[in-house]
Amino acid sequence: MHIGALTTPALIVQTELLDANLRTMAAAWPGRRLRPHVKAHKCTALAARQAQLGHTAFTCATIAEMEGLARRGLGEDLLLANEVVDASRLGALVRAGARVTMAVDSEEIIAAATAAGVPEVLIDVNVGLPRCGCDPEQAGRLADSARRHGLGVRGVMGYEGHIVGLADRSRRVELLEESMALLHACHGEVGGDVISAGGTGTYDINHWATELQAGSYALMDTAYAKLGLPYAEALSVLATVISVSPDWAVADCGLKALGMDHGNPSVDDATVLFCSDEHLVFRPEHQVRVGERIAVRPAHVDPTVAYHERLHLVVADDVVESWPVDLRGW
Amino acid sequence: MHIGALTTPALIVQTELLDANLRTMAAAWPGRRLRPHVKAHKCTALAARQAQLGHTAFTCATIAEMEGLARRGLGEDLLLANEVVDASRLGALVRAGARVTMAVDSEEIIAAATAAGVPEVLIDVNVGLPRCGCDPEQAGRLADSARRHGLGVRGVMGYEGHIVGLADRSRRVELLEESMALLHACHGEVGGDVISAGGTGTYDINHWATELQAGSYALMDTAYAKLGLPYAEALSVLATVISVSPDWAVADCGLKALGMDHGNPSVDDATVLFCSDEHLVFRPEHQVRVGERIAVRPAHVDPTVAYHERLHLVVADDVVESWPVDLRGW
Repeated sequence: MHIGALTTPALIVQTELLDANLRTMAAAWPGRRLRPHVKAHKCTALAARQAQLGHTAFTCATIAEMEGLARRGLGEDLLLANEVVDASRLGALVRAGARVTMAVDSEEIIAAATAAGVPEVLIDVNVGLPRCGCDPEQAGRLADSARRHGLGVRGVMGYEGHIVGLADRSRRVELLEESMALLHACHGEVGGDVISAGGTGTYDINHWATELQAGSYALMDTAYAKLGLPYAEALSVLATVISVSPDWAVADCGLKALGMDHGNPSVDDATVLFCSDEHLVFRPEHQVRVGERIAVRPAHVDPTVAYHERLHLVVADDVVESWPVDLRGW
Repeated sequence: MHIGALTTPALIVQTELLDANLRTMAAAWPGRRLRPHVKAHKCTALAARQAQLGHTAFTCATIAEMEGLARRGLGEDLLLANEVVDASRLGALVRAGARVTMAVDSEEIIAAATAAGVPEVLIDVNVGLPRCGCDPEQAGRLADSARRHGLGVRGVMGYEGHIVGLADRSRRVELLEESMALLHACHGEVGGDVISAGGTGTYDINHWATELQAGSYALMDTAYAKLGLPYAEALSVLATVISVSPDWAVADCGLKALGMDHGNPSVDDATVLFCSDEHLVFRPEHQVRVGERIAVRPAHVDPTVAYHERLHLVVADDVVESWPVDLRGW
């Protein structure tokens, strides 16, 4: 199918850029050393492509993502890198044959894993991002408690989310050292084989993690593109110009097609003025005409993908595959 | 079902508040004088409730919304208050028996309506929001052109989107007068019975419109709540506290459950610090515990609803109905 036949707005993936991104990361973090985070693409077909490259263990943020991967036959080693209070659906995955590991950062979450029959956990440690994760001083105690509950403690997890997006590489290196020193010390208390950490923004400087939880590297976005990493923006939203005024133009790609927490998207050779529900208002540097199609590059890939039903893979102007975004919801 | 049995995050509608909002608006703009905009709720079941109150003509922002309403038997008078370049699916709706009117603001869009067999249009006029809508000076000329193309011109449309959200009522009144004077003048040039305009924020001051396109009034959000209108926040996102630290807590409601263009959501008796993909980090004024549920009030209803599959209607702690958000996508 020609790309022109797509209904807009539509998520477009430049297949060659995606594949190059996947290969670059696989070279740096081969096989099981990378545990791709599927929250960035929410697509089992893309996860299957990552698995073909040897990454057969996955990171998830939701139970629905865990279930979808298992349903696709990708349940060899699934980590829920997030806390859940009701893990019963994870227990069902275990009984259906998936290997399931949960992040735990409190006695309550340990109790949830135990009650559900989830057999393995990582102790989730706060390494500087004020979100989930236990106080580092509590990590050893929580590991002991988990083991007393009969859980297998595979190791530690600590996501340096306060660092991965910093523009200055030397600042990333400096803060990462502090965070990972903390995590390493916790690992000494906790035991196990796994130190799970990292993201796209620290893929080349995190030498502490035994496995990297990167996700955004596959599709990228304008925020990550600013870091100068060797990953290309493979994702864009195809939009149609629907109205042209002397000083601005409007395309059919708005707040319901774009994650907006990182700000406005970008359009080449244009200034984006604002977005409404179904509109992107922009000032083009060159004349555009009604019916013309433009590529809108989102500021944040994860919440953008989550609005769409399909990823359309293109080579030049041909849509070569359409992948369902089948890991949405909860 | 008890509300506690819902998987979180979940969209919750306080049924009594919704019904009160619908009644209040129906009293102010009865029957066909209100043309509810479904983009704010994307739910045919809610549209059916609006139709039961006499509002049997609807406003849409996407073709998928038009199709969904027609499928539900609500195709008596559907307005696409937005420009589309390919109207072929609207033509199919017409042939299936729906009454379809399109907004047009250029010769290209008039050509699209003509080609698709959409028989009726409104001339969309820019009344001050720099988005779609023709220059007011062009309105009469476009109406002539549309009629030459064999289209029925029902009147004019002009959305005062730059005014509906202004905090100061007297400023809303003042700017509205300018906008509606423009639209009225255009109506004189264009002819037809319809002057379609307005939104929730101007529902009590827009005395020019023959029909009001309000949508947000049904569910509301924290942005509209600041205007002091007699509509209550009927919508919230139910979330579960998954992690508690001494200085903050985390709930499972993040960027993929909330439209973020208007900023952070609100939580009663708490300060929201930030949101991540699946996390809301907040500082509660009182101690919260893991497993506790909280109500998160979104800043912008439209892009929030578009992330969810269902609206759960509750009375006290009981879920009395679950409505599919069946107008998503394009």
